[in-house]
Formats: sequence, C-alpha cells, structure tokens
Amino acid sequence: MPQKPQILSRRTVARSRLFHVEELELLFANGARTRFERLVGSGRGAVLIVPMLDDDTVLLIREYAAGTQRYELGLPKGLVEQGEELLEAANREIMEEVGYGARQLDYLTALTVAPGYLSHSTHVILARDLYPERLPGDEPEDIQVVPWKLSQLDQLIALDDCTEARSIAALYMARDQLSRTA
Amino acid sequence: MPQKPQILSRRTVARSRLFHVEELELLFANGARTRFERLVGSGRGAVLIVPMLDDDTVLLIREYAAGTQRYELGLPKGLVEQGEELLEAANREIMEEVGYGARQLDYLTALTVAPGYLSHSTHVILARDLYPERLPGDEPEDIQVVPWKLSQLDQLIALDDCTEARSIAALYMARDQLSRTA
Repeated sequence: MPQKPQILSRRTVARSRLFHVEELELLFANGARTRFERLVGSGRGAVLIVPMLDDDTVLLIREYAAGTQRYELGLPKGLVEQGEELLEAANREIMEEVGYGARQLDYLTALTVAPGYLSHSTHVILARDLYPERLPGDEPEDIQVVPWKLSQLDQLIALDDCTEARSIAALYMARDQLSRTA
Repeated sequence: MPQKPQILSRRTVARSRLFHVEELELLFANGARTRFERLVGSGRGAVLIVPMLDDDTVLLIREYAAGTQRYELGLPKGLVEQGEELLEAANREIMEEVGYGARQLDYLTALTVAPGYLSHSTHVILARDLYPERLPGDEPEDIQVVPWKLSQLDQLIALDDCTEARSIAALYMARDQLSRTA
C-alpha cells in the first residue's frame, strides 16, 4: 500500500444547510503538492437495506430523487441517527419506507459513493424474516413499494429508473450471498 | 410512474471551485411542499471503464481518494471533457490511467451515485482488445495498476480498500455480460 499524502492544511470553503465543502492541501510522498475539495459527511454514515420478503423477492422503493429530478427505483436507505446502532437504523428505515420489520439482520459490507470527493460511507444490511410493522417516515409523499425477483436482476438493471450504483452493487452482492447459502 | 413534483423555486445556496449547491422548493402532487438541496454537476457526467486485458482479467487502479482520505482500489474513471464523445473519453481515460487503449468499446449503462442529492451520472464502458498506449494524466502521483480475475470478484469485494459502489456494480454487470456472451 502506498504511503498516504500528508495533509498540510484544511479549511472550509463553502457551507449550506446540508453540505460542508472542505479544501485540503496535500503533500504526496513524491513531493507533489495539490489541493482537493471534498464534501464532509455527518460521520455516522447511512444504511442501505436489502429487505427479502422471501428467498427470491426483494422489496424495492420508488421515490422522487431531487438530485436527478426524477423518480428512482432502488433499495430503501437513510442516515444513521445519533446513538443508533447500524442494524437498529436499518430496521427503522424499512419500517418507515416499506412497512416491514426484520427478525434477521446481517451486515454485508460498507460502500462508498464517490471516495474522491465524498467522505460518506453506506452500510449494506441484508434483512430477512420480515413481519408487517410501519413507522411514520419523513417523506413528502407516500413511497411506492415494488417487489422484484432477484432471479430477474438483469431486467431490473435494464430499466431507465434503476440507476443507483449502491442499490445495484448491493443487489448483486445479496444475490451472490443468498445463492451461496441456499 | 407517479407525477413529478413541480419546481416552485431554485436558487444557489453555496458555491466553491468544484461544487455548486442549489436549493429547490418542490410542490408534490399531494400538495406537500418541501425544500431539497442538491449538488449540480458539470452536465457532461463521467465515464467509468471496465478494461479487460483478457476474458477474465480486469485492470483496476489504486489511487488516493481525498474524500475518504485513503487509497482506494477500483475501476479507472474520469470526467467527460467538452466536445468529447463518451467512448472517446473512456479510451482517453484508460490511456492516462492504465496505459492501454482499446479497439473495442461497448456502452453498458448509466449509473447514478446519489440521486437524492447529486445530479451526476456515470457512464459505464466495457473496453476490450487492449493495446499498450500511454497518455500523460493529471494525477499528482503514479497510479498503481492492479490486474484482477473477474472469477475472483468475491475476494476483491471482501478487501477493505475496494468499496466504491460504481466500480462494484460495474464489475458485476461486466461479469454477467461477459459470461452470457462467452
């Protein structure tokens, strides 16, 4: 593994309600100096859940995405709240977004979304043995829940509104993991 | 597909050299009004390339990521330059980052990284029939090229420094696509 660059300086260059942009001045092992901007996240990160209704059926959600300004089909996710464990956050999110809790929650992996400029990390949780349980969410409109067969993942990914890299990576990983333990 | 919310207003709330944060006020079909912040990208998006040295060997790169402040192992990628076609951008990026050009370039899909708050889109290109060709890049230090077998994707994803969702999603998609056409 190469030697990490040294951080010579660090300063906030922009800030809004949600975003905090920081500029880092770095000195690399070869003597090169450069400045990078990055977005600093909340530190607790997010959870992304693969809720399995049965061995082959995953529950997706269709929700408006303000970044791309269209409805996106993907896995339920949300920020981890203060004092919350990851599995606890995952269970809360699926109760809010798909109307189920899970008796079995397994940590799969941590994903990054854009490591070059976002500090943010997303923890992927596989949720099984579901039971109906709804918690009120903070969404501006009802979320549409869309059951999909993991055995038809190719057809899902071919859809124009299923584009989110984290959801797609997590669905493949869950499919591989479930087929190994089947 | 649900009816898209109406954009009531839009204003810039923060700006730095790299980032442009916009606040949208939205009116949903059910009458709910809400404000969202999003990062507005360059519009041209990025390319992420799956460069195959042979039917099973993909060329990964290990590069310092200022967002997560560690070295990350993933696929080569970069922003599309003005006036550049996507396949052309993909070929330039692999010449700069892995030292190969490709005689066969196939468009696989478009991925989003965080559709809730980023407008950004990444185009995934499968590159085959490679030949040695190097273009100078703009990286502060040499990029390490790491060949990996797609048949050992599980072991790759288990590594602590292979976390980027776009790279993982693209590797699974390429593996599935190549196994179908094999």
